[in-house]
Amino acid sequence: MCRWLAYTGAPLYLEELILKPEHSLIDQSLESHSGATTTNGDGFGIGWYGDRETPGVYKDVQPAWNDANLRDLAAHIKSPLFLAHIRAATGTAIQQTNCHPFRHGKWLFVHNGLISGFARVKRELALAVAPELYPRILGSTDSELMFKLAISFGLEDNPLVALERMAGFVEKTCADQGIDKALQLSVGVSDGQRLLAVRYSTEGRSRTQFHSTSMQALQEINPDLRRFSPDARAVVSEPLSDLTDVWEEVPESTALVIHRGEIQTHPFEPRPPD
Amino acid sequence: MCRWLAYTGAPLYLEELILKPEHSLIDQSLESHSGATTTNGDGFGIGWYGDRETPGVYKDVQPAWNDANLRDLAAHIKSPLFLAHIRAATGTAIQQTNCHPFRHGKWLFVHNGLISGFARVKRELALAVAPELYPRILGSTDSELMFKLAISFGLEDNPLVALERMAGFVEKTCADQGIDKALQLSVGVSDGQRLLAVRYSTEGRSRTQFHSTSMQALQEINPDLRRFSPDARAVVSEPLSDLTDVWEEVPESTALVIHRGEIQTHPFEPRPPD
Amino acid sequence: MCRWLAYTGAPLYLEELILKPEHSLIDQSLESHSGATTTNGDGFGIGWYGDRETPGVYKDVQPAWNDANLRDLAAHIKSPLFLAHIRAATGTAIQQTNCHPFRHGKWLFVHNGLISGFARVKRELALAVAPELYPRILGSTDSELMFKLAISFGLEDNPLVALERMAGFVEKTCADQGIDKALQLSVGVSDGQRLLAVRYSTEGRSRTQFHSTSMQALQEINPDLRRFSPDARAVVSEPLSDLTDVWEEVPESTALVIHRGEIQTHPFEPRPPD
Amino acid sequence: MCRWLAYTGAPLYLEELILKPEHSLIDQSLESHSGATTTNGDGFGIGWYGDRETPGVYKDVQPAWNDANLRDLAAHIKSPLFLAHIRAATGTAIQQTNCHPFRHGKWLFVHNGLISGFARVKRELALAVAPELYPRILGSTDSELMFKLAISFGLEDNPLVALERMAGFVEKTCADQGIDKALQLSVGVSDGQRLLAVRYSTEGRSRTQFHSTSMQALQEINPDLRRFSPDARAVVSEPLSDLTDVWEEVPESTALVIHRGEIQTHPFEPRPPD
Repeated sequence: MCRWLAYTGAPLYLEELILKPEHSLIDQSLESHSGATTTNGDGFGIGWYGDRETPGVYKDVQPAWNDANLRDLAAHIKSPLFLAHIRAATGTAIQQTNCHPFRHGKWLFVHNGLISGFARVKRELALAVAPELYPRILGSTDSELMFKLAISFGLEDNPLVALERMAGFVEKTCADQGIDKALQLSVGVSDGQRLLAVRYSTEGRSRTQFHSTSMQALQEINPDLRRFSPDARAVVSEPLSDLTDVWEEVPESTALVIHRGEIQTHPFEPRPPD
Repeated sequence: MCRWLAYTGAPLYLEELILKPEHSLIDQSLESHSGATTTNGDGFGIGWYGDRETPGVYKDVQPAWNDANLRDLAAHIKSPLFLAHIRAATGTAIQQTNCHPFRHGKWLFVHNGLISGFARVKRELALAVAPELYPRILGSTDSELMFKLAISFGLEDNPLVALERMAGFVEKTCADQGIDKALQLSVGVSDGQRLLAVRYSTEGRSRTQFHSTSMQALQEINPDLRRFSPDARAVVSEPLSDLTDVWEEVPESTALVIHRGEIQTHPFEPRPPD
Repeated sequence: MCRWLAYTGAPLYLEELILKPEHSLIDQSLESHSGATTTNGDGFGIGWYGDRETPGVYKDVQPAWNDANLRDLAAHIKSPLFLAHIRAATGTAIQQTNCHPFRHGKWLFVHNGLISGFARVKRELALAVAPELYPRILGSTDSELMFKLAISFGLEDNPLVALERMAGFVEKTCADQGIDKALQLSVGVSDGQRLLAVRYSTEGRSRTQFHSTSMQALQEINPDLRRFSPDARAVVSEPLSDLTDVWEEVPESTALVIHRGEIQTHPFEPRPPD
Repeated sequence: MCRWLAYTGAPLYLEELILKPEHSLIDQSLESHSGATTTNGDGFGIGWYGDRETPGVYKDVQPAWNDANLRDLAAHIKSPLFLAHIRAATGTAIQQTNCHPFRHGKWLFVHNGLISGFARVKRELALAVAPELYPRILGSTDSELMFKLAISFGLEDNPLVALERMAGFVEKTCADQGIDKALQLSVGVSDGQRLLAVRYSTEGRSRTQFHSTSMQALQEINPDLRRFSPDARAVVSEPLSDLTDVWEEVPESTALVIHRGEIQTHPFEPRPPD
């Protein structure tokens, strides 16, 4: 099981949420309590929005806890919207092209979850990727393919509908192969303005996802910090601290859209292909 | 431009041809004389047949000249049939899954060359891979796809015909996209018994390929060595030494089949799909 | 806390003890039960004796469980005497030169343990290394320095005395700096003939170390295997299986010398410098 | 032979000097014209000053031309003072701790050159490092040792005198061992305010070093760029472009101190120990 975190608010050094909190993302990569796998040592990545048109991405295949570069970069890069991901591979190769976030133009995508029976449906899913995007599939993961499918289905115009179409297409393709419980989905997506998060699973028993409800939630994580703005919000695949009462669990089959501190909640309903 | 070497004969430590000769494969990776690119620093791999059913493979993304492990392994692994490859990437990611040799069961495959306009035909080529092989495409190179296509076209039963069908299919697919000079092919393939090599290009101006003609050829490379057996033969993408007169250039559009020191020559004629 | 395994007996493929047993070394690298740290993801190494004068070594900084090369090499390399090590770093850099086994001529050295307050005594210890060996200190660990000290103190002539002199020197140097509990030592050493193992700690509460007592012990680990010879013996820093009754714990302050299946036990008594 | 570049002036994205110019540092890492070695493929590093107290550093052991992260970071990190280095190793291990820049507090250090007969004097030099700094020697290069010696000799108070004392000490130590032509030195050092550069060799035939003399020099390198400030200056170990007339060669045995566009020139005279 992977883990991820997304932040939007006043610019923060990435280290303030990734490295410094007592139960930081990196710290947790060494020891997973709620996860199915014990260790997230199969690579990591950060993606952040700055003053360029496209976001920056830094990925490596080492365990995040070993990466001296990550510590330095997280201490020097400041951003108003960033995503971080640590990977626990489930069969695919340990290589940078399989690490999250995935990027397409100004869009970033992180994911924790899986497509059941992926090897049996991979070809069918890849065929549904827009032909001009096909040669830009760089790695071998289900996550990258889900992102490319969502782009093919209109992510840049209407991200929630595109994600619902992607989920519907994956479920239909799996069902055609007799695969139950096709999808486990905990997705974070951004275009640099809005932060979207989806919690969904075919079987209705999804992996966890939490969002902070207030500035206070973040300050309780990192008490040394006074820079959290009133509109600062974070979404995490598992709570970053033991103070779980200041984090709200995202309900089953739900999409969040976070913009300037405001959190909108939408039902997430996969749209099968016609 | 990549480089490769293949050896068949009495068991040798890999280092005797990869590391020790004055103009060894590794030495040449630092400075390419005949090649289009200046440096082969984008990863390497060795594949060797031993006493297990499937051959062993060791690959890394570092430059070969930097790899302390390679030096040690090449000094300790002895094999009667091995292939070595050093990579100069032309756009695809530097990752182990893009390094040669590629392996399928007992088969190994190395390649120097390219498919012109690969991004434009990649999807079409991938669709022609046998569906059960599709999820086993691990990297993103044209070389791996050529190997998977050849397997789909019957490599395990009739390797030369399968390679000709692969070449014909690639040329046809490129032609349909208006791509000239589709293929540059310098391939080495083995099942552990026979060593096959193909030199071919659509335009009839192929990259070089040489084979040794006698035991003496190999002894001139590595004079310290007395272990070369009378049936020892090597194929290289460029001559390993300046003693080019003891190496015979493989003619254009030719396939070699080397078995127990005997070298058979066949014309190589791509077979377009029906 | 690191982990290691050493084997001596009829030649085995390394995978048979490193990868295949249910509680193999690699499997345990993901989840440590008895150890102080939770995960051994900071690199690994194997060293094996073959038919060359010096042993082969393969090391990498990735977690062992991720390394495709390790799986292939362990499946193809067969040896009558090998050591394997997986690392959990305690502050020093994650780099190949810090991975075990360390090698000097025909000698290999693996270690689990530490020198307390290492930064405070490192210079003093390095000064005691034989001047001609000083430039051959390649990494930054306490383990490599312990090995270089033991060589300086005569390891090649009398390994047990040299290790005792090393331990005595480290304890004296630490004591001079007011450092208690100077040493935790679980060492495996070999010259390709004999396998030596030392369990010792200054405070008399050493990390675990076990040795197999019979061929049966190894067969219980890997029941598929019939190739274990009557003189096969293994030493491990933690028991490889739950069948702990067939493994004998090495007593405190003890050195083992294993040769052709015979296990000699010696008290291990650090020798302070004169 | 390594290569390096240092920039001071109005904040620039690092890519504007490292990646984008036709004869950029990275481009040149593939093919060295003036250098003794053909390829700088043995790792690289960047160090930059931002709004934190200490500078950021990013290093990797891959060839710079392969590093997707470097491209992204250089496109997103903007700095008024940065150093970049690409390495061609001369015998020491390829590992991050051997990559430049080296950092100590707010100081950064890059180097191209070598200490002749380093293995014979390494121990003597290491003993002269301040004892409290000794455990902070992380790698195995002569360059890091030169930096640690300069710090030990007062770099933070008087950098030029400290570098002269370092050079004098190295020359004396080498001379005691009968080593001629002890030093080749092309150093870049900064505390985030001033940029210092030294060109020196014992034999008086030093490796090249150039500095730009005006804003125009930099604009000729990267014509797309209008952001160069009047006080922008760069120092490079080899000219970045073929437009060598706008770059001034630093004379033999000379130190530059660059501050706010003003370039002071000092003779560089090694100070032997008393």
